[in-house]
Amino acid sequence: MSDVKPAVVLLSGGLDSATVLAMAKADGFTPVTLTFRYGQRHAAEIETAAKLAAKAEVVRHVVADIDLRAFGGSALTADIDVPKHRSDAEIGEGIPITYVPARNTVFLSFALALAETTQSYDVFIGVNALDYSGYPDCRPEFVRAFEDVMNLATKAGVEGARPFTLHTPLIDMTKAQIIKAGTALGVDYAETLSCYDPTPDGRHCGSCDACHLRRKGFRDAGMDDPTPYAA
Amino acid sequence: MSDVKPAVVLLSGGLDSATVLAMAKADGFTPVTLTFRYGQRHAAEIETAAKLAAKAEVVRHVVADIDLRAFGGSALTADIDVPKHRSDAEIGEGIPITYVPARNTVFLSFALALAETTQSYDVFIGVNALDYSGYPDCRPEFVRAFEDVMNLATKAGVEGARPFTLHTPLIDMTKAQIIKAGTALGVDYAETLSCYDPTPDGRHCGSCDACHLRRKGFRDAGMDDPTPYAA
Repeated sequence: MSDVKPAVVLLSGGLDSATVLAMAKADGFTPVTLTFRYGQRHAAEIETAAKLAAKAEVVRHVVADIDLRAFGGSALTADIDVPKHRSDAEIGEGIPITYVPARNTVFLSFALALAETTQSYDVFIGVNALDYSGYPDCRPEFVRAFEDVMNLATKAGVEGARPFTLHTPLIDMTKAQIIKAGTALGVDYAETLSCYDPTPDGRHCGSCDACHLRRKGFRDAGMDDPTPYAA
Repeated sequence: MSDVKPAVVLLSGGLDSATVLAMAKADGFTPVTLTFRYGQRHAAEIETAAKLAAKAEVVRHVVADIDLRAFGGSALTADIDVPKHRSDAEIGEGIPITYVPARNTVFLSFALALAETTQSYDVFIGVNALDYSGYPDCRPEFVRAFEDVMNLATKAGVEGARPFTLHTPLIDMTKAQIIKAGTALGVDYAETLSCYDPTPDGRHCGSCDACHLRRKGFRDAGMDDPTPYAA
């Protein structure tokens, strides 16, 4: 019997998913990483994800093309300005305009297809219910509902020896806790990209919600922030 | 208050989804139709869907590109021969090799994104638990699980005035019942395409599982089959 435990890890190139990848490896999984090209304004995060996957020596790195721009509805995919210089209170309030319709549902459905074809019964996603409380598809109740779908939708779920598990190791962690955990596992956060609106040369803008939470995370963790912010 | 009831209808160009589109209109919904270009061998079904949408005078017809070929695993998207000349017993046995990994989950996740951006609280899909009993993602328990996801994943589900409903009007119908119902609603089945392996000029092959079930449906319904089969 093989000791290999294949797992699909969603990898955006950001701080959170880089930490999840390190956690999956530390748990003894052999990751297949999956990154989406989904009409973001910048390709920098796709390149960052590919570099992280290569460094982690994953067995396979898949870039899937999905275009949600035709559907409209978000600053991350449509022609709406990314909000800048918002406070914690503003970021925590309501559903952000950077919300992409059904994004994690779409991402996880592709992850499920890849999991089924690679005989992976474990899928990892770096959703976080604390920092991004405005996103409905980052909540534990969404995660459990999608896990049910995974087990009802698939040949593997119906005929398989064991059920699918949707792992969300970051769901209850603060950004500071995530940074501490990842650092302990050897993650080099200088190689990750969180920014919603990076500069043309791939640096963090320093003022969007993602940069704000990233800066605050290092500050709260009491650790040096290796990020070369543009401002 | 507007009387318009927008709904997203998944439209493949086949007999089943053409019937569902007619049913949604008969129920007073204003359909937005959604067709997928997903690495099928033939574009004929995409063209057929566009013609059906135009004839039904839908408010919007969206063709979404998704490429599951990179994931492998099915005769409909990979380089495996479509099975021919199989009996009812063979078709009904186990999960067919034409099964696409997580297909309906992927399709419905896109439908959910489109539903959210078009303020549609109703999504229609022509899944059928009888003729295609081998597909796990055509079963009622899958449908209910995905409906839960729709209501937990989205801004509309969380903040909306009412829950999403995933309509599957064909789920318990035989092919003969579907054909009778559609005919009563004015569906011209000569304009639909069911075949897994159509000829270069867009005709039904006459011998794949889909053609077999289509032929049998008209026979069981005691109706003339308007399909120009190649053989």
